[in-house]
Amino acid sequence: MLYYPDPESGLDRKAVNDAIEEAFAEHGRGRVQMPPKMYVTFPSGDFRTMPAYIPSLGIGGVKIVNVHPENPAIGLPTVMALTIILDVGTGKPEAILNATGLTDLRTGAAGAVAAKYLAPGNSVSLGVVGSGRQARAQVEALSREVSIENIRVWSRKEKNARDFCEIFTRFDCEATSLEKVCESRCIVTTTPSRAPLIKSEWIHEGTHINAIGADAPGKQELDPYILKRAAVFVDDPVQAVHSGEINVPIRNGLYSPDEIEGTLGEVVLGKKGRKDSTQITVFDSTGLAIQDLALAKVAMKTGTAVNLTFDV
Amino acid sequence: MLYYPDPESGLDRKAVNDAIEEAFAEHGRGRVQMPPKMYVTFPSGDFRTMPAYIPSLGIGGVKIVNVHPENPAIGLPTVMALTIILDVGTGKPEAILNATGLTDLRTGAAGAVAAKYLAPGNSVSLGVVGSGRQARAQVEALSREVSIENIRVWSRKEKNARDFCEIFTRFDCEATSLEKVCESRCIVTTTPSRAPLIKSEWIHEGTHINAIGADAPGKQELDPYILKRAAVFVDDPVQAVHSGEINVPIRNGLYSPDEIEGTLGEVVLGKKGRKDSTQITVFDSTGLAIQDLALAKVAMKTGTAVNLTFDV
Repeated sequence: MLYYPDPESGLDRKAVNDAIEEAFAEHGRGRVQMPPKMYVTFPSGDFRTMPAYIPSLGIGGVKIVNVHPENPAIGLPTVMALTIILDVGTGKPEAILNATGLTDLRTGAAGAVAAKYLAPGNSVSLGVVGSGRQARAQVEALSREVSIENIRVWSRKEKNARDFCEIFTRFDCEATSLEKVCESRCIVTTTPSRAPLIKSEWIHEGTHINAIGADAPGKQELDPYILKRAAVFVDDPVQAVHSGEINVPIRNGLYSPDEIEGTLGEVVLGKKGRKDSTQITVFDSTGLAIQDLALAKVAMKTGTAVNLTFDV
Repeated sequence: MLYYPDPESGLDRKAVNDAIEEAFAEHGRGRVQMPPKMYVTFPSGDFRTMPAYIPSLGIGGVKIVNVHPENPAIGLPTVMALTIILDVGTGKPEAILNATGLTDLRTGAAGAVAAKYLAPGNSVSLGVVGSGRQARAQVEALSREVSIENIRVWSRKEKNARDFCEIFTRFDCEATSLEKVCESRCIVTTTPSRAPLIKSEWIHEGTHINAIGADAPGKQELDPYILKRAAVFVDDPVQAVHSGEINVPIRNGLYSPDEIEGTLGEVVLGKKGRKDSTQITVFDSTGLAIQDLALAKVAMKTGTAVNLTFDV
């Protein structure tokens, strides 16, 4: 059994996007097994258990990931993760990966795949809401799929937004107001908000939004009216209804699961997509176990592993 | 992060039983979180993902366990497992345990707890159906809770039954027919059968049966009429209906979930139990994630661990 302490180092980011796109394609073809992720609640956070199997890639296993919002105060990330890979033929544990960094990458890559197919052009202005790990991951991943003309970033703490631009000096990057950020043609929202931050009136026709932050019941970042105006694509309908951007509006009766336009898998396969240059599109990301497995497969090829005894 | 390659070595078996009993007591008190285990199917087997949290023990995590019946032909066990323990306060991965041997132990211990409370006396004749790892684990665990007068064992291959007695020379042990085995006052069934092996006419009044083998949809070992005659106690109602001894009779309309007498947790708490010396009692075991966590906690105290880098 192998343990990969640092499997994200040395990964080719374009290869990551391609692996995630292939996972979504297989999801769109209905050729994966993936029970909805399960939540267990701890006193100051929760953890999610995400099993799956992608037959075409010959990979099966489980990601285990926590969300503890108070962790940064004690020097730990909010989110940490392990992925366990089993041998498909025998079920024997084959590998354990520190999936903390991989989780950032695979979520970023899903946003990149969504932007590749749904953004209103190959070259876009990018609006970034939030300035944490996932905001950075979105920019890194999207920049491999679309040409970023400029970045406008907003953070609750303005200094964090300015620091964000310091990281991305290779782009024309500006820390600005939320309203200004929303003038971008492609927007990514990455906050843990539990109330709408983005007003519908700020969103122009033709905008594409990656709604990344909402990944648990009660979380939301967008005015529900944006969802009513938009074609909403989800990663997985069951998970999105339970914990995606649409979960609160559905609970409040403001949105219906019937209104979902399709899945990102269907978009990748060309079955669904943006209708015209004026349509608003939203990708509602909750994070799929198949993303973790597809990325684990790539990372196990390049990563350095420690050998662990597993006698049975 | 610690890795325990061999956490079952050196474990006090009585302490194992006590830990499992405490887990069932907490389950009976409704003080655990445990989503039903999830199944993912591989071409020649499956794996199950089992998250849980026991607040009173301060332990949370996930067991991942496969079932590949063809493995023994290539020198691997049918069942192999890992348990992942997370720090309750921060969600950080704290330990990984090779749970292959622990899985045998915790299932044996559940049988021992059931026999302690439900067997028709503190001293019993023991009938063992099947002679594999779990049959041995049941005998080891039960012998810490009840006095075993003699063992009668049946296996599809008679030589296996004789070999079984060679292991348990400290008992009066006899390899014999299935019918003779069923004359015992306490019976444990441990086969992967998908059709009833045990005829109702063989089961005397007052017998207690640990029905261990059926742990997936389609599996069953007992004539459903035994269930109709008996007070049936389950480890967890949702899991038992889905994959326990009662799953096939329920699907066939021969048994109803309403007929379940109670849970082992309720039995441990004294809320439910054997009514009199003539009642037939059945413990329908599917295996609970909380058993794995409670045992992991014990094993982490005595086991030897390897330190793994987990940088975040």
